[in-house]
Amino acid sequence: MEHRADEGLAFMLQYENVAWYEDGAVRILDRRVYPTEVSFVSCLRHEEVAQAIADMVTQSAGPYTAAAMGMALAAWECRNMTEQAQVDYLTAAASVIANARPTTAKRMQLICDSSLQAAKTALQAGERVDYAIREHAVRANNVRYSKIDTIGKYLVERFPQNGTVMTQCFGETIVGMMLKHARLSGKNIRLFCPETRPYFQGARLTATVCRDMGFDVTVITDNMPAFVMEREHVDVFTCAADAICLDGHVVNKVGTLQIAICAKHFGVPVYVTGDPDRGHPTKDSVTIEMRDPEYSLQAMGVRTAAEGVKGYYPAFDMTPPELITGIVTDRGILSPFELQSYFAGGGQGEY
Amino acid sequence: MEHRADEGLAFMLQYENVAWYEDGAVRILDRRVYPTEVSFVSCLRHEEVAQAIADMVTQSAGPYTAAAMGMALAAWECRNMTEQAQVDYLTAAASVIANARPTTAKRMQLICDSSLQAAKTALQAGERVDYAIREHAVRANNVRYSKIDTIGKYLVERFPQNGTVMTQCFGETIVGMMLKHARLSGKNIRLFCPETRPYFQGARLTATVCRDMGFDVTVITDNMPAFVMEREHVDVFTCAADAICLDGHVVNKVGTLQIAICAKHFGVPVYVTGDPDRGHPTKDSVTIEMRDPEYSLQAMGVRTAAEGVKGYYPAFDMTPPELITGIVTDRGILSPFELQSYFAGGGQGEY
Repeated sequence: MEHRADEGLAFMLQYENVAWYEDGAVRILDRRVYPTEVSFVSCLRHEEVAQAIADMVTQSAGPYTAAAMGMALAAWECRNMTEQAQVDYLTAAASVIANARPTTAKRMQLICDSSLQAAKTALQAGERVDYAIREHAVRANNVRYSKIDTIGKYLVERFPQNGTVMTQCFGETIVGMMLKHARLSGKNIRLFCPETRPYFQGARLTATVCRDMGFDVTVITDNMPAFVMEREHVDVFTCAADAICLDGHVVNKVGTLQIAICAKHFGVPVYVTGDPDRGHPTKDSVTIEMRDPEYSLQAMGVRTAAEGVKGYYPAFDMTPPELITGIVTDRGILSPFELQSYFAGGGQGEY
Repeated sequence: MEHRADEGLAFMLQYENVAWYEDGAVRILDRRVYPTEVSFVSCLRHEEVAQAIADMVTQSAGPYTAAAMGMALAAWECRNMTEQAQVDYLTAAASVIANARPTTAKRMQLICDSSLQAAKTALQAGERVDYAIREHAVRANNVRYSKIDTIGKYLVERFPQNGTVMTQCFGETIVGMMLKHARLSGKNIRLFCPETRPYFQGARLTATVCRDMGFDVTVITDNMPAFVMEREHVDVFTCAADAICLDGHVVNKVGTLQIAICAKHFGVPVYVTGDPDRGHPTKDSVTIEMRDPEYSLQAMGVRTAAEGVKGYYPAFDMTPPELITGIVTDRGILSPFELQSYFAGGGQGEY
């Protein structure tokens, strides 16, 4: 399974898309085992899609696609009900799916509501509802890819001609788009990816995308970012976000906060990619998801600590605006203190 | 295998001691697999002891004991040579053992030289040289334990009555002594131990000592210290050191630097335990050991990254004095900027 350069990008787009609905089932690429294994979780009920999202079968932007495909599945489940009963059923399904993971619930709700809207339009037109939701999701993803493409272009403008970039965690689409633009602009970039415990998304997923795109990529353990900044001259630290609050606080995979603190210490600029999120006017609207603490007491399935030792597992942390150089949006790079300006030209921003 | 409270301390002292020389062999507790497995590496030549140290069979203060026991083994190897030949043989062995790991070479050389001195005295007195070296090592260890006992007492004075302490990496003796004094002074301490990739010494070893001593201990992954400082109110961050340069730079397990940077950000005091090291007048005398990069691409023996992705593995990092609140020595707590004062009363400091 060798994927290089643009082939890599094509593959990356394809495998982010593989939460896919087809008559009565949603198939989701199991990123918990990728790239060692390429296998899929099959969901026959929308509740199973919600469970798969909760179980982290898919991560990063994957849950957004999975959520829409789950709504398509819900439409299949209720296809023989009356029109009003279908709307009620889909409204209930939207709530189940959106709340699969607390930290991203607000953005998920927007996506599910949007699917519901597509369903209502299809019902009125007498079209097949499940397919209409799927088509709507594909269009929305294409809009998103196009936005991320623009974001990647803006981000790469901040890279030197020859330089070193540190990433954090997953963000396959943005990493792929970023490297596409690095190549297009002839920039010679090497990457350091922290492994991102306890799931190793950095080692397993981010680094694989970088390799697939044909770039020089080094995985480090999560206790090495400061050392690398001190000794290897890092030009930029960049990451995506699970939520960008309008007050400039950024919610992302746990570990982002401490890398940003170190970046400030060493004078490394910090660029966070993504849209400001109207669902989160301030940091106080964010619930940090605490997952099963036992999960931090193992690595790749092997127990690390003795019996009687406690675990602890916050899935995300929050980086304050004073540690962030810029938020890279499809409308340019904004100060984290001026995110309202994103909405000045109208438009929704999210999704 | 249950060990509680003072029993825990006794056990801890015992297993640090188990690099042990007995007629023609040194047995070393294999801390790479402890506590899952309690097994020993047996060395029949002093070169094998050096190799075991290089292979990280024993860590923290373990190599210092192992080095002396290796010298005892070398004395056994050359026992039938002439007196001068024995001295020459032991001098050569001292060099092999001291240079097993670059970052600690200077302190190891002091220990080996000290063993050599004990050997010369034994030769002159017509005593059995291997046993003389072993006895010398035991006495030196007892002096060291007594110093660490005092250090633990000073350190605990900086803890609140009820509080939270974050550690970094191993340091079984100092962790045990610290918790002994916490109990003696009736302080109620809970501990957060970062797991310390890639060897998981924090998860496997530090946390086990804390549990054995009967304290509330939580293992976190190495990307969580900032989150824990922000959300769990950490009163003190403390760690030991592989070398404390006289200019106040502290060499310790990789990750210490970034925790210290975060501690400064959150206003958490940083106390480093140990003696200033005359072998390292400034940071420029330290060589940071770069180990096999492939080792960072696995966890507990399971590969994490795809083929074609590079690894990276600095064993240590260096924390500058401006990030350190105090160096906790057996002569009190010193400013990292005034370490010369440690030697004001005479005495060597090291070992």
